[in-house]
Amino acid sequence: MNDTLIKGGRIITATDDYHADVLLSAGRIALIGEELDVRADRVIDARGQYVIPGAVDMHTHLEMPFGGTVTCDDFTTGTVAAVHGGTTAVVDFCIQERDQSLPDALATWHEKIERCRPLADVGFHLAVTDLTDPARLEELAALPEHGVTSIKLFMAYKGAIMVDDETLFRTMQVAGRTGSVVMVHAENGDAIDVLVREALAAGNTDPIWHARTRPPITEAEATSRAIDLAALADCPLYVVHVSCAEALAPVQRARAAGAAVWAETCSQYLYLDETYLARPDFEGAKAVFTPPAREAHQQEALWRGLETGVLSVVSSDHCAFRFADQKALGRGDFSKIPNGAPGIEDRVELLHETGVRSGRLTLNQWVELTSTAPARLFGMPAKGTIAVGADADVVVFDPERTRTISAATHHSAVDYNLYEGTAVRGGPSAVFVRGTLVVRDGELVGEPGTGRFVARERFGAGAALTAA
Amino acid sequence: MNDTLIKGGRIITATDDYHADVLLSAGRIALIGEELDVRADRVIDARGQYVIPGAVDMHTHLEMPFGGTVTCDDFTTGTVAAVHGGTTAVVDFCIQERDQSLPDALATWHEKIERCRPLADVGFHLAVTDLTDPARLEELAALPEHGVTSIKLFMAYKGAIMVDDETLFRTMQVAGRTGSVVMVHAENGDAIDVLVREALAAGNTDPIWHARTRPPITEAEATSRAIDLAALADCPLYVVHVSCAEALAPVQRARAAGAAVWAETCSQYLYLDETYLARPDFEGAKAVFTPPAREAHQQEALWRGLETGVLSVVSSDHCAFRFADQKALGRGDFSKIPNGAPGIEDRVELLHETGVRSGRLTLNQWVELTSTAPARLFGMPAKGTIAVGADADVVVFDPERTRTISAATHHSAVDYNLYEGTAVRGGPSAVFVRGTLVVRDGELVGEPGTGRFVARERFGAGAALTAA
Amino acid sequence: MNDTLIKGGRIITATDDYHADVLLSAGRIALIGEELDVRADRVIDARGQYVIPGAVDMHTHLEMPFGGTVTCDDFTTGTVAAVHGGTTAVVDFCIQERDQSLPDALATWHEKIERCRPLADVGFHLAVTDLTDPARLEELAALPEHGVTSIKLFMAYKGAIMVDDETLFRTMQVAGRTGSVVMVHAENGDAIDVLVREALAAGNTDPIWHARTRPPITEAEATSRAIDLAALADCPLYVVHVSCAEALAPVQRARAAGAAVWAETCSQYLYLDETYLARPDFEGAKAVFTPPAREAHQQEALWRGLETGVLSVVSSDHCAFRFADQKALGRGDFSKIPNGAPGIEDRVELLHETGVRSGRLTLNQWVELTSTAPARLFGMPAKGTIAVGADADVVVFDPERTRTISAATHHSAVDYNLYEGTAVRGGPSAVFVRGTLVVRDGELVGEPGTGRFVARERFGAGAALTAA
Amino acid sequence: MNDTLIKGGRIITATDDYHADVLLSAGRIALIGEELDVRADRVIDARGQYVIPGAVDMHTHLEMPFGGTVTCDDFTTGTVAAVHGGTTAVVDFCIQERDQSLPDALATWHEKIERCRPLADVGFHLAVTDLTDPARLEELAALPEHGVTSIKLFMAYKGAIMVDDETLFRTMQVAGRTGSVVMVHAENGDAIDVLVREALAAGNTDPIWHARTRPPITEAEATSRAIDLAALADCPLYVVHVSCAEALAPVQRARAAGAAVWAETCSQYLYLDETYLARPDFEGAKAVFTPPAREAHQQEALWRGLETGVLSVVSSDHCAFRFADQKALGRGDFSKIPNGAPGIEDRVELLHETGVRSGRLTLNQWVELTSTAPARLFGMPAKGTIAVGADADVVVFDPERTRTISAATHHSAVDYNLYEGTAVRGGPSAVFVRGTLVVRDGELVGEPGTGRFVARERFGAGAALTAA
Repeated sequence: MNDTLIKGGRIITATDDYHADVLLSAGRIALIGEELDVRADRVIDARGQYVIPGAVDMHTHLEMPFGGTVTCDDFTTGTVAAVHGGTTAVVDFCIQERDQSLPDALATWHEKIERCRPLADVGFHLAVTDLTDPARLEELAALPEHGVTSIKLFMAYKGAIMVDDETLFRTMQVAGRTGSVVMVHAENGDAIDVLVREALAAGNTDPIWHARTRPPITEAEATSRAIDLAALADCPLYVVHVSCAEALAPVQRARAAGAAVWAETCSQYLYLDETYLARPDFEGAKAVFTPPAREAHQQEALWRGLETGVLSVVSSDHCAFRFADQKALGRGDFSKIPNGAPGIEDRVELLHETGVRSGRLTLNQWVELTSTAPARLFGMPAKGTIAVGADADVVVFDPERTRTISAATHHSAVDYNLYEGTAVRGGPSAVFVRGTLVVRDGELVGEPGTGRFVARERFGAGAALTAA
Repeated sequence: MNDTLIKGGRIITATDDYHADVLLSAGRIALIGEELDVRADRVIDARGQYVIPGAVDMHTHLEMPFGGTVTCDDFTTGTVAAVHGGTTAVVDFCIQERDQSLPDALATWHEKIERCRPLADVGFHLAVTDLTDPARLEELAALPEHGVTSIKLFMAYKGAIMVDDETLFRTMQVAGRTGSVVMVHAENGDAIDVLVREALAAGNTDPIWHARTRPPITEAEATSRAIDLAALADCPLYVVHVSCAEALAPVQRARAAGAAVWAETCSQYLYLDETYLARPDFEGAKAVFTPPAREAHQQEALWRGLETGVLSVVSSDHCAFRFADQKALGRGDFSKIPNGAPGIEDRVELLHETGVRSGRLTLNQWVELTSTAPARLFGMPAKGTIAVGADADVVVFDPERTRTISAATHHSAVDYNLYEGTAVRGGPSAVFVRGTLVVRDGELVGEPGTGRFVARERFGAGAALTAA
Repeated sequence: MNDTLIKGGRIITATDDYHADVLLSAGRIALIGEELDVRADRVIDARGQYVIPGAVDMHTHLEMPFGGTVTCDDFTTGTVAAVHGGTTAVVDFCIQERDQSLPDALATWHEKIERCRPLADVGFHLAVTDLTDPARLEELAALPEHGVTSIKLFMAYKGAIMVDDETLFRTMQVAGRTGSVVMVHAENGDAIDVLVREALAAGNTDPIWHARTRPPITEAEATSRAIDLAALADCPLYVVHVSCAEALAPVQRARAAGAAVWAETCSQYLYLDETYLARPDFEGAKAVFTPPAREAHQQEALWRGLETGVLSVVSSDHCAFRFADQKALGRGDFSKIPNGAPGIEDRVELLHETGVRSGRLTLNQWVELTSTAPARLFGMPAKGTIAVGADADVVVFDPERTRTISAATHHSAVDYNLYEGTAVRGGPSAVFVRGTLVVRDGELVGEPGTGRFVARERFGAGAALTAA
Repeated sequence: MNDTLIKGGRIITATDDYHADVLLSAGRIALIGEELDVRADRVIDARGQYVIPGAVDMHTHLEMPFGGTVTCDDFTTGTVAAVHGGTTAVVDFCIQERDQSLPDALATWHEKIERCRPLADVGFHLAVTDLTDPARLEELAALPEHGVTSIKLFMAYKGAIMVDDETLFRTMQVAGRTGSVVMVHAENGDAIDVLVREALAAGNTDPIWHARTRPPITEAEATSRAIDLAALADCPLYVVHVSCAEALAPVQRARAAGAAVWAETCSQYLYLDETYLARPDFEGAKAVFTPPAREAHQQEALWRGLETGVLSVVSSDHCAFRFADQKALGRGDFSKIPNGAPGIEDRVELLHETGVRSGRLTLNQWVELTSTAPARLFGMPAKGTIAVGADADVVVFDPERTRTISAATHHSAVDYNLYEGTAVRGGPSAVFVRGTLVVRDGELVGEPGTGRFVARERFGAGAALTAA
């Protein structure tokens, strides 16, 4: 027995806000009450602190081969960083190689988590790149049986992992029939490819050209196209990393019309703008991710999207490449800079700082955006809430805890931090993964292997969290 | 001591859906857990049933003088009907008379609930009709000190309770400064008045002319105007009884732009259409309420509004006049038919039947629309949820219970029911008001006086439900 | 006989653009051809110049009593200024006094033009302020018989000429039935009145507070309301002096839906912004007109409205008060500054300079906005075009003629010019009113009395210009 | 000398409406005046009739190879049909074959008109299918030098003439730089291809499946995509044959935002609906064109688009295949039915009947949509109007002439007519092509070879019709 009693905290869910004691037992939330008089192995005094569901990050790329290198966080370092930031579950992208069967692709990713023994729970999306073999469609249909109920497709990265509309549409048809959500990286890869070649031909090779060759309308176009194809295929759609007002517009129209469309943004689009890419000495390469950081005024549109419900989730798109040797592959040719940036550890605290403390978001919205919505949309009813029977993924969050974000202190294996020097108020004082204390007052106290694979339910399964 | 243990139910809140036992103690929800092993005075077996927060009805008119008569349900009969339908709190409209001070108006309404001893909790909105005396503005500002944090104004009923834009705007200015929400009955009273006089002059006196003289655009216009004036006054706005797509449009635009605007519809707009008013033998008078029932296609727009979050609440606008002698005042002149219809008892079951069972709404949305949203928007953090510390306003709802709605069996004092003969599946098997069982298996077991006045918090007060 | 042959000009209409000779005879355009070999009393060499229809200004206030004074241009000085700027017809607002019959109001205005003997043609809109007497509705219906087919109402100026929604709606009903257009000054007078009183009470008396107490949303609200009421009344609507994006929005929505709604802006909104009102030494009073000049960014929205056809007309709203003694009435109380500014002479040249020469508008659009559209919308088929049979209201416009706008040289009786010091390229070298040369190379050569009253056709009469 | 005097007609242009005499001389309009007293070889009495500019049809496919056959009208029969219907100029699609140079493609089409000697003037759009060879981009840039200033691309017909987004975007870049308009056939070919294969695999082979496999959203998606790519490329865009509200929506948004986007619909979408395709005995094949005829309610949206200016042009998309032997190629497999239908002769009369006579469109709009707008958008300033100096392409249109449309009497070589049996009132009594009378009272009186190739100006060249 390994019970924990969290006493006197202010419990925040997507809906509720109240003070109570919480008992974690056998990996689940067992009891919630006032002044609980129960025995426990461990008692946490949470007075003056929030008790929130562990955050869920739907968008990570751990140990992912890309552009001739591999992201520098594996499932160990990546999830160590995650739990330090209050994230207790991630859903990572398992990428199909050309000609690879989907079960083989999944096996490759399962191997990674068996080897790396994550600290947080881990689920997989399946990123489809190639449906040439007709067997692939049957494999797609069978994915939910493996606990994988979301399928990602890239509408950019022409010549690499980009799919054509036929592949996108056929995947949507299968997903819609079999209970999976389709996720799209929405950029018009054809137009971008032309712009990139023109830029390079003109001798424009610096990182800022990464942004200049991917203007907002390329994202808007692909977003609109994916929405239309998903409607035609009768398939739920989730648009990842929306970065600008132009791309929000079709999402808003679709949602207002009642379409099964959801979208996320990511921390970096809320805090950084494209001037970062113009920093001298190749510093801009640190912020080379896709879609690119936009002009500063776009941030207001994204915040408005979070406030009005057009955007449902804030993810990290954690995709870490070292500046020293990995980003450096693109010196002299921005198109060769590995695309991606780290953020898994800072997401929850940043949104608390800039969203909640500024008054733009309520505490309920903060929990909704970082935890409840991703858990619900992606078939994890036991996560994303503080309710009896739920997984005891619990964060005691001290709203007065202060920290200055820095690569010197963060837990990712990457050698820089996009938010270097940013002071945040509010951070986890205790983090539980299914009842196991993994972080306490900034120290890692959990063991590798605490995390498990999460088999997810089909979209819209709608079952109660626990059986009668 | 009077504790109740509700065992084995499926707990549904606006966010959660899980199975647990709930202990009600001292009028509050004291404990939630799996297989609770606690002593209680009463044990309810809720297996196979939902445990939901008591519903909140923001829009009732009990014992209200109107058009030379008085609504036929007082706070006794009205709240008896309410609790039978699973509604454990109502917020009623206290109407200022011409030249009356607001404290006097409130005193009049307090007298009603002291005399009538309601079964459910009762709060008051203050309906302003006359700001001629400058003292009124100060009284408006002081309303929150009396637990009244919402102010209603009528943009229709010219020559009676309609206010001009100056009164509306000045009220909004005060409300915005002092933490009240402004509620509007949005119809262009000037245009309607012209149309009514023209109809009568042309000899068109039947009830159907009530609908024909209040076309959708009169509602759309006033809705848009109220939204604009509220924005100018920096005041939160709640539009009552939205009935048509034309009026939804400005609400949607405002909400998409992030404005502090919310809107409700009412049961009758979701289920009835204007053909009801054309029923022979003056039957149409039963459905003379304002705005009128619309063409049938409007219902689809309202359901879409509920699904997409443009509409936040479903209320009843319960305003009961007997057909036999009260509605009859308008025989030969539709403009003299007392405006209003009953519905306080049927609201929750109807939305379960037509919304949830049809698959249009989730169980969470049903609870949100009938309970959580009204409680939160109108400053009642202890209501609208199942959480430790909340008021023990709890309904055990049997999804298989069947009933045929009928005036012969309903509990209102009115002599007809708009939904006469409608079969619904799903209804309360037990209803608690702050821990007191008031209805059990369709029988009233509570005592008059169980209900109390609810002092409500200021808009956006945002406090936790319970102190640390 | 008094024929004029205009040779070799570039003829610009709303549609066409070609070179030809034009013969004016008997007050009409008699012949258009290449190298016309006809005899004429006068030959004008128009090579290198445009030949355009005389401009039509739908919005002037000549010799109008307002706020205890009278506009300083009468129909002589006002139309002398008009023709110098290429405007050959104006439609002025005949204002009904309280309790005055409409025929009496018209008689008052007819007296003005009989006395003042205008240089340009003159029509009248009827500005309704009071429908208390039921006889007024019949008089409204009879207006087209007097050649008056447009009715103006003010939704602002509370306590003076503002009408309530009932008056507005009933006027629209009559107008819609009898072939008149309703024109609205769209501002929410109630809200503005509150804001003005609050500003004065707070000691804010400078001209800039004229702008601060009439924010864009007050204009947007009234515009939207007028559109809705006009739709209900089935009446064509023309919104005068749109000044901002907020008010354009409902116009755009209505027009996109096919509603019979048109709108104009005026020169001052395209060129001035609200910083003008903050000029020291009461200079700001020169730009006190209503709605006020807006923030500079609004100009872009107005230009976009002109380009995309949301706005159909550019008028002047010429309403001249001398700075020295008339504007001065509002020293120490901005609300007493007579509202209005001059512009009748500069409208066409300014739009040429800033619209055409900058490339935003084509020559065809320039003619459409200043001449053709107002002539067509307001029932003057013989004006607004260069076509055989049309009134010989013709301007030979030299695109290279230069001028610096100044009160020292303008022809209005007013003692300042809003555009003082602005250099424009392009201006009339010859101006004809029904075949009579009135201005030649900047000199007045016409006689008072050249202009006549224009009886206008009913809205949508749609007849050909000339009989078969 | 071969002058014609048209006397007493009612001249209708896109703007004007007046009575005058018109002299045609040397192929141009030489003189317009009242009661012209000039000598002429031929005098036409046009009293009681309209005198309108010859109609321009921007969308024809004459002698076009497609799907293994060739359209059955060549430039002789096609233009004979055109002039009978009042169309005096067509712009036909010159289709590049795979690997073919653009000059070679143009040469092929020039050969057709040299051989066939058309009756009407003829211009060419260039339909690009293949940019593999880099030389193609330079050829694109040089097209305006050949009088070809519009480039068509197909986003559908996968595996045949469909282009990918790269080809589309690069073409737009070149066109935007060099003064050409890009025209798109906007349907998502990838999705349609999947749906077609699924339908055939399921044994659904009848013509109605042509419509069912091309749902409106496939058109909407491609329309939106083309608009976005054109904005990115800074290229004017013209969307051909818009068929439904879903596709109108992005056009409306773009135009409201001031984008350089225009769109046409075609006669068949205004008059036919998809029930035609379900006619028995393979009759439905007659209406197999692309996009397909839609549900009947879409027609209202298209009419609204014409009225509000979202749609700028009505074309024919004349693409005639004989029913007997050509449409028959698709018996048993709808995907093999040659796509296209005739309509070149009936377009102008149908729009007069259903648009003008019904009161939906004014006479001016009718001329604008069928003649002026296509002439102006596509660089033919000498066409599309009745003005001195313009090409004497003139139609005397008798509004009382009656005709019953029928394949038995039409002049196309095709063996059926989509509007068989439709009675129309109003038709040409005389048709002139650059001054030559080609049709008189329904009889062909002109000679083959009257028509010439029209070299068109660059987009936005904006020159006056005639030199000074």
